[in-house]
Amino acid sequence: MTVKEINKMDFLDFVQAFGTVIEYTPLIAASVWAMRPFPDFYMLHRAFTVCISDLSQSSKKGLLRCHPDLAGKLAEHCQMPEESIREQTTAGLLDLEDAERNKLRDLNERYKQRFQFPFVICLRETRKDAITAVLRKRLNNSIEEEIDCGTGEIIKVAFYRLADLVEDPKSKL
Amino acid sequence: MTVKEINKMDFLDFVQAFGTVIEYTPLIAASVWAMRPFPDFYMLHRAFTVCISDLSQSSKKGLLRCHPDLAGKLAEHCQMPEESIREQTTAGLLDLEDAERNKLRDLNERYKQRFQFPFVICLRETRKDAITAVLRKRLNNSIEEEIDCGTGEIIKVAFYRLADLVEDPKSKL
Repeated sequence: MTVKEINKMDFLDFVQAFGTVIEYTPLIAASVWAMRPFPDFYMLHRAFTVCISDLSQSSKKGLLRCHPDLAGKLAEHCQMPEESIREQTTAGLLDLEDAERNKLRDLNERYKQRFQFPFVICLRETRKDAITAVLRKRLNNSIEEEIDCGTGEIIKVAFYRLADLVEDPKSKL
Repeated sequence: MTVKEINKMDFLDFVQAFGTVIEYTPLIAASVWAMRPFPDFYMLHRAFTVCISDLSQSSKKGLLRCHPDLAGKLAEHCQMPEESIREQTTAGLLDLEDAERNKLRDLNERYKQRFQFPFVICLRETRKDAITAVLRKRLNNSIEEEIDCGTGEIIKVAFYRLADLVEDPKSKL
Protein backbone atom coordinates (compact mmCIF):
# COMPACT_ATOMS: atom_id res chain seq x y z
CA MET A 1 0.00 0.00 0.00
CA THR A 2 1.09 3.60 -0.58
CA VAL A 3 1.31 6.39 1.99
CA LYS A 4 -1.57 8.08 0.17
CA GLU A 5 -3.76 5.02 0.67
CA ILE A 6 -2.66 4.73 4.31
CA ASN A 7 -3.74 8.33 4.97
CA LYS A 8 -7.28 7.44 3.86
CA MET A 9 -7.68 4.43 6.15
CA ASP A 10 -10.21 4.34 8.97
CA PHE A 11 -8.83 3.21 12.30
CA LEU A 12 -10.07 -0.38 12.01
CA ASP A 13 -8.24 -0.88 8.69
CA PHE A 14 -5.17 0.95 9.97
CA VAL A 15 -4.93 -1.18 13.12
CA GLN A 16 -5.53 -4.30 11.03
CA ALA A 17 -2.66 -3.31 8.70
CA PHE A 18 -0.14 -2.03 11.28
CA GLY A 19 -1.22 -3.65 14.55
CA THR A 20 1.68 -6.13 14.47
CA VAL A 21 4.42 -3.58 13.74
CA ILE A 22 4.90 -3.34 17.52
CA GLU A 23 4.79 -6.83 18.99
CA TYR A 24 1.43 -7.69 20.59
CA THR A 25 0.69 -3.96 20.98
CA PRO A 26 -1.88 -2.69 18.44
CA LEU A 27 -2.40 0.17 20.93
CA ILE A 28 0.60 1.93 19.36
CA ALA A 29 -0.78 1.72 15.79
CA ALA A 30 -4.17 2.76 17.16
CA SER A 31 -2.57 5.89 18.66
CA VAL A 32 -0.46 6.57 15.57
CA TRP A 33 -3.57 6.58 13.37
CA ALA A 34 -4.72 9.90 14.87
CA MET A 35 -1.53 11.57 13.58
CA ARG A 36 -2.57 11.25 9.91
CA PRO A 37 -1.95 12.53 7.34
CA PHE A 38 1.67 11.38 7.06
CA PRO A 39 3.63 13.36 4.46
CA ASP A 40 5.83 10.32 3.74
CA PHE A 41 6.99 6.93 5.00
CA TYR A 42 9.55 8.46 7.34
CA MET A 43 6.93 10.55 9.11
CA LEU A 44 4.77 7.44 9.48
CA HIS A 45 7.68 5.73 11.25
CA ARG A 46 8.33 8.93 13.21
CA ALA A 47 4.75 8.74 14.56
CA PHE A 48 5.43 5.23 15.92
CA THR A 49 8.62 6.58 17.52
CA VAL A 50 6.71 9.45 19.18
CA CYS A 51 4.00 7.14 20.56
CA ILE A 52 6.54 4.75 22.04
CA SER A 53 8.69 7.55 23.45
CA ASP A 54 5.63 9.11 25.08
CA LEU A 55 4.91 5.98 27.16
CA SER A 56 5.74 6.12 30.87
CA GLN A 57 8.78 4.17 32.09
CA SER A 58 6.40 1.59 33.55
CA SER A 59 4.58 1.14 30.21
CA LYS A 60 7.90 0.94 28.34
CA LYS A 61 8.91 -1.92 30.61
CA GLY A 62 5.51 -3.51 29.90
CA LEU A 63 6.12 -3.07 26.17
CA LEU A 64 9.48 -4.82 26.45
CA ARG A 65 7.81 -7.68 28.35
CA CYS A 66 5.50 -8.23 25.36
CA HIS A 67 8.54 -9.21 23.26
CA PRO A 68 9.67 -12.82 22.95
CA ASP A 69 12.99 -13.96 24.37
CA LEU A 70 15.73 -14.54 21.85
CA ALA A 71 16.15 -18.27 21.35
CA GLY A 72 14.08 -18.63 24.50
CA LYS A 73 10.86 -20.19 25.68
CA LEU A 74 8.65 -18.61 23.04
CA ALA A 75 11.02 -19.32 20.13
CA GLU A 76 11.13 -23.00 21.00
CA HIS A 77 7.38 -23.30 21.21
CA CYS A 78 6.77 -21.31 18.03
CA GLN A 79 4.23 -19.10 19.78
CA MET A 80 5.71 -16.00 18.21
CA PRO A 81 4.04 -13.74 15.67
CA GLU A 82 5.02 -14.43 12.06
CA GLU A 83 7.17 -11.26 11.87
CA SER A 84 9.34 -12.36 14.79
CA ILE A 85 9.80 -15.88 13.47
CA ARG A 86 10.95 -14.44 10.11
CA GLU A 87 13.39 -12.06 11.82
CA GLN A 88 14.80 -14.73 14.12
CA THR A 89 15.11 -17.19 11.22
CA THR A 90 17.00 -14.62 9.12
CA ALA A 91 19.33 -13.97 12.03
CA GLY A 92 19.96 -17.72 12.25
CA LEU A 93 18.65 -17.84 15.81
CA LEU A 94 16.28 -20.70 15.21
CA ASP A 95 19.09 -23.04 14.12
CA LEU A 96 21.72 -22.32 16.74
CA GLU A 97 24.02 -25.14 17.86
CA ASP A 98 23.24 -26.44 21.34
CA ALA A 99 26.29 -24.85 23.01
CA GLU A 100 25.61 -21.48 21.43
CA ARG A 101 21.93 -21.67 22.27
CA ASN A 102 22.75 -22.53 25.89
CA LYS A 103 25.16 -19.62 26.22
CA LEU A 104 22.58 -17.25 24.78
CA ARG A 105 19.89 -18.69 27.05
CA ASP A 106 22.09 -18.24 30.15
CA LEU A 107 22.85 -14.63 29.27
CA ASN A 108 19.16 -14.03 28.54
CA GLU A 109 18.23 -15.43 31.92
CA ARG A 110 20.78 -13.17 33.65
CA TYR A 111 19.41 -10.22 31.71
CA LYS A 112 15.81 -11.00 32.70
CA GLN A 113 16.78 -11.53 36.33
CA ARG A 114 18.56 -8.19 36.38
CA PHE A 115 16.10 -6.02 34.44
CA GLN A 116 12.80 -7.88 34.86
CA PHE A 117 12.10 -7.67 31.12
CA PRO A 118 13.57 -9.57 28.15
CA PHE A 119 16.56 -8.56 26.04
CA VAL A 120 15.29 -6.97 22.83
CA ILE A 121 17.49 -6.38 19.79
CA CYS A 122 16.82 -5.47 16.16
CA LEU A 123 17.99 -8.64 14.40
CA ARG A 124 17.97 -7.06 10.97
CA GLU A 125 20.79 -4.76 12.04
CA THR A 126 22.81 -7.20 14.13
CA ARG A 127 25.24 -9.90 13.03
CA LYS A 128 24.44 -13.26 14.57
CA ASP A 129 27.96 -13.65 15.95
CA ALA A 130 27.75 -10.23 17.63
CA ILE A 131 24.55 -10.88 19.61
CA THR A 132 26.24 -12.61 22.55
CA ALA A 133 28.79 -9.78 22.85
CA VAL A 134 26.06 -7.12 22.71
CA LEU A 135 24.05 -8.97 25.36
CA ARG A 136 27.10 -9.16 27.66
CA LYS A 137 27.75 -5.44 27.18
CA ARG A 138 24.13 -4.42 27.78
CA LEU A 139 24.04 -6.48 30.97
CA ASN A 140 26.27 -3.76 32.47
CA ASN A 141 23.83 -0.94 31.72
CA SER A 142 21.57 0.68 34.31
CA ILE A 143 17.86 -0.15 34.14
CA GLU A 144 17.08 3.31 32.73
CA GLU A 145 19.70 2.84 30.01
CA GLU A 146 18.23 -0.56 29.13
CA ILE A 147 14.67 0.80 28.95
CA ASP A 148 15.99 3.38 26.43
CA CYS A 149 18.08 0.80 24.61
CA GLY A 150 15.31 -1.81 24.41
CA THR A 151 12.64 0.64 23.24
CA GLY A 152 15.18 2.04 20.73
CA GLU A 153 15.55 -1.48 19.32
CA ILE A 154 11.75 -1.83 19.11
CA ILE A 155 11.68 1.40 17.10
CA LYS A 156 14.33 0.03 14.71
CA VAL A 157 12.38 -3.24 14.29
CA ALA A 158 9.29 -1.16 13.52
CA PHE A 159 11.16 0.66 10.74
CA TYR A 160 11.88 -2.56 8.85
CA ARG A 161 8.42 -3.99 9.43
CA LEU A 162 6.84 -0.77 8.14
CA ALA A 163 9.17 -0.69 5.14
CA ASP A 164 7.98 -4.23 4.30
CA LEU A 165 4.37 -3.10 4.38
CA VAL A 166 4.56 0.25 2.62
CA GLU A 167 4.99 0.41 -1.16
CA ASP A 168 7.98 2.42 -2.28
CA PRO A 169 8.96 3.77 1.17
CA LYS A 170 11.13 6.46 -0.44
CA SER A 171 8.24 8.16 -2.25
CA LYS A 172 6.63 11.37 -1.04
CA LEU A 173 2.96 12.34 -1.26
CA MET B 1 -5.80 -19.39 40.62
CA THR B 2 -5.32 -17.65 43.96
CA VAL B 3 -3.75 -14.25 44.60
CA LYS B 4 -0.91 -16.05 46.37
CA GLU B 5 -0.18 -18.08 43.22
CA ILE B 6 -0.46 -14.95 41.07
CA ASN B 7 2.16 -13.19 43.18
CA LYS B 8 4.65 -15.96 42.40
CA MET B 9 4.21 -15.81 38.61
CA ASP B 10 7.03 -14.77 36.29
CA PHE B 11 6.08 -12.17 33.71
CA LEU B 12 5.56 -14.65 30.87
CA ASP B 13 3.03 -16.64 32.88
CA PHE B 14 1.39 -13.48 34.19
CA VAL B 15 0.96 -11.98 30.72
CA GLN B 16 -0.31 -15.34 29.45
CA ALA B 17 -2.92 -15.43 32.23
CA PHE B 18 -4.01 -11.77 32.22
CA GLY B 19 -3.03 -10.49 28.78
CA THR B 20 -6.64 -10.50 27.56
CA VAL B 21 -8.12 -8.67 30.56
CA ILE B 22 -7.60 -5.46 28.58
CA GLU B 23 -8.69 -6.04 24.98
CA TYR B 24 -5.74 -6.67 22.62
CA THR B 25 -3.41 -4.90 25.07
CA PRO B 26 -1.18 -7.33 27.01
CA LEU B 27 1.05 -4.29 27.59
CA ILE B 28 -1.18 -3.36 30.54
CA ALA B 29 -0.85 -6.77 32.24
CA ALA B 30 2.88 -6.68 31.47
CA SER B 31 3.14 -3.33 33.32
CA VAL B 32 0.88 -4.48 36.18
CA TRP B 33 3.13 -7.50 36.81
CA ALA B 34 5.89 -5.25 38.21
CA MET B 35 3.52 -4.07 40.96
CA ARG B 36 3.48 -7.47 42.72
CA PRO B 37 2.91 -8.57 45.38
CA PHE B 38 -0.81 -7.80 45.45
CA PRO B 39 -2.28 -8.00 48.97
CA ASP B 40 -5.65 -9.08 47.56
CA PHE B 41 -7.83 -9.24 44.45
CA TYR B 42 -8.91 -5.62 44.77
CA MET B 43 -5.33 -4.38 44.74
CA LEU B 44 -4.67 -6.52 41.65
CA HIS B 45 -7.55 -4.75 39.92
CA ARG B 46 -6.32 -1.43 41.33
CA ALA B 47 -2.97 -2.01 39.59
CA PHE B 48 -4.77 -2.35 36.23
CA THR B 49 -6.63 0.89 37.01
CA VAL B 50 -3.37 2.71 37.79
CA CYS B 51 -1.66 1.51 34.59
CA ILE B 52 -4.59 2.58 32.41
CA SER B 53 -4.97 5.92 34.19
CA ASP B 54 -1.25 6.61 33.72
CA LEU B 55 -1.51 6.41 29.91
CA SER B 56 -1.36 9.67 27.97
CA GLN B 57 -4.58 10.96 26.39
CA SER B 58 -3.27 9.82 23.01
CA SER B 59 -2.60 6.27 24.29
CA LYS B 60 -6.01 6.17 25.99
CA LYS B 61 -7.63 6.97 22.66
CA GLY B 62 -5.48 4.21 21.11
CA LEU B 63 -6.64 1.83 23.83
CA LEU B 64 -10.28 2.62 23.06
CA ARG B 65 -9.61 2.00 19.36
CA CYS B 66 -8.49 -1.55 20.22
CA HIS B 67 -12.03 -2.32 21.42
CA PRO B 68 -14.66 -3.81 19.09
CA ASP B 69 -17.75 -1.85 18.11
CA LEU B 70 -20.95 -2.88 19.79
CA ALA B 71 -23.06 -4.87 17.33
CA GLY B 72 -20.69 -3.55 14.68
CA LYS B 73 -18.28 -4.79 12.09
CA LEU B 74 -16.28 -7.00 14.41
CA ALA B 75 -19.31 -8.51 16.13
CA GLU B 76 -20.78 -9.58 12.81
CA HIS B 77 -17.57 -11.17 11.64
CA CYS B 78 -16.89 -12.88 14.96
CA GLN B 79 -13.33 -11.58 15.01
CA MET B 80 -13.62 -10.65 18.65
CA PRO B 81 -11.75 -12.21 21.54
CA GLU B 82 -13.69 -14.89 23.41
CA GLU B 83 -14.26 -12.61 26.42
CA SER B 84 -15.98 -9.97 24.30
CA ILE B 85 -18.20 -12.48 22.51
CA ARG B 86 -19.33 -13.86 25.89
CA GLU B 87 -20.07 -10.38 27.22
CA GLN B 88 -21.93 -9.28 24.10
CA THR B 89 -23.91 -12.54 24.04
CA THR B 90 -24.91 -12.13 27.69
CA ALA B 91 -26.03 -8.58 26.95
CA GLY B 92 -28.15 -9.94 24.08
CA LEU B 93 -26.24 -7.85 21.55
CA LEU B 94 -25.51 -10.70 19.18
CA ASP B 95 -29.21 -11.46 18.65
CA LEU B 96 -30.63 -7.98 18.22
CA GLU B 97 -33.61 -7.50 15.90
CA ASP B 98 -32.71 -5.79 12.62
CA ALA B 99 -34.34 -2.44 13.50
CA GLU B 100 -32.64 -2.31 16.88
CA ARG B 101 -29.31 -3.34 15.42
CA ASN B 102 -29.60 -0.63 12.76
CA LYS B 103 -30.40 2.04 15.34
CA LEU B 104 -27.44 0.98 17.44
CA ARG B 105 -25.20 0.88 14.37
CA ASP B 106 -26.25 4.40 13.34
CA LEU B 107 -25.56 5.79 16.80
CA ASN B 108 -22.25 3.94 16.89
CA GLU B 109 -21.27 5.48 13.56
CA ARG B 110 -22.17 8.96 14.82
CA TYR B 111 -20.14 8.30 17.95
CA LYS B 112 -17.09 7.16 15.96
CA GLN B 113 -17.37 10.10 13.59
CA ARG B 114 -17.51 12.50 16.52
CA PHE B 115 -14.84 11.01 18.81
CA GLN B 116 -12.66 9.02 16.38
CA PHE B 117 -12.77 5.96 18.63
CA PRO B 118 -15.52 3.40 19.30
CA PHE B 119 -18.18 3.55 22.02
CA VAL B 120 -17.10 1.30 24.89
CA ILE B 121 -19.44 0.20 27.66
CA CYS B 122 -19.27 -2.43 30.39
CA LEU B 123 -22.04 -4.79 29.28
CA ARG B 124 -22.12 -6.67 32.55
CA GLU B 125 -23.35 -3.54 34.29
CA THR B 126 -25.71 -2.27 31.60
CA ARG B 127 -29.24 -3.36 30.72
CA LYS B 128 -29.64 -4.13 27.02
CA ASP B 129 -32.60 -1.75 26.70
CA ALA B 130 -30.56 1.07 28.27
CA ILE B 131 -27.59 0.91 25.87
CA THR B 132 -29.16 3.07 23.16
CA ALA B 133 -30.12 5.74 25.71
CA VAL B 134 -26.63 5.74 27.22
CA LEU B 135 -25.08 6.02 23.76
CA ARG B 136 -27.32 9.00 22.91
CA LYS B 137 -26.39 10.69 26.18
CA ARG B 138 -22.67 10.09 25.82
CA LEU B 139 -22.76 11.53 22.29
CA ASN B 140 -23.22 14.92 23.98
CA ASN B 141 -20.04 14.65 26.04
CA SER B 142 -16.80 16.44 25.21
CA ILE B 143 -13.94 14.34 23.86
CA GLU B 144 -12.09 14.58 27.20
CA GLU B 145 -15.19 13.38 29.06
CA GLU B 146 -15.54 10.46 26.66
CA ILE B 147 -11.88 9.45 27.02
CA ASP B 148 -12.50 9.31 30.80
CA CYS B 149 -15.83 7.58 30.39
CA GLY B 150 -14.56 4.99 27.89
CA THR B 151 -11.43 4.14 29.89
CA GLY B 152 -13.61 3.96 33.03
CA GLU B 153 -15.74 1.35 31.27
CA ILE B 154 -12.61 -0.60 30.29
CA ILE B 155 -11.61 -0.62 33.96
CA LYS B 156 -15.05 -1.98 34.94
CA VAL B 157 -14.84 -4.69 32.25
CA ALA B 158 -11.41 -5.62 33.63
CA PHE B 159 -12.89 -6.07 37.11
CA TYR B 160 -15.31 -8.76 35.93
CA ARG B 161 -12.75 -10.46 33.72
CA LEU B 162 -10.28 -10.59 36.61
CA ALA B 163 -12.96 -11.85 39.00
CA ASP B 164 -13.62 -14.70 36.53
CA LEU B 165 -9.94 -15.64 36.54
CA VAL B 166 -9.08 -15.32 40.23
CA GLU B 167 -10.22 -17.94 42.70
CA ASP B 168 -12.24 -16.58 45.58
CA PRO B 169 -11.76 -12.86 44.77
CA LYS B 170 -12.85 -11.88 48.26
CA SER B 171 -10.02 -13.72 50.03
CA LYS B 172 -6.99 -11.93 51.42
CA LEU B 173 -3.42 -13.22 51.51
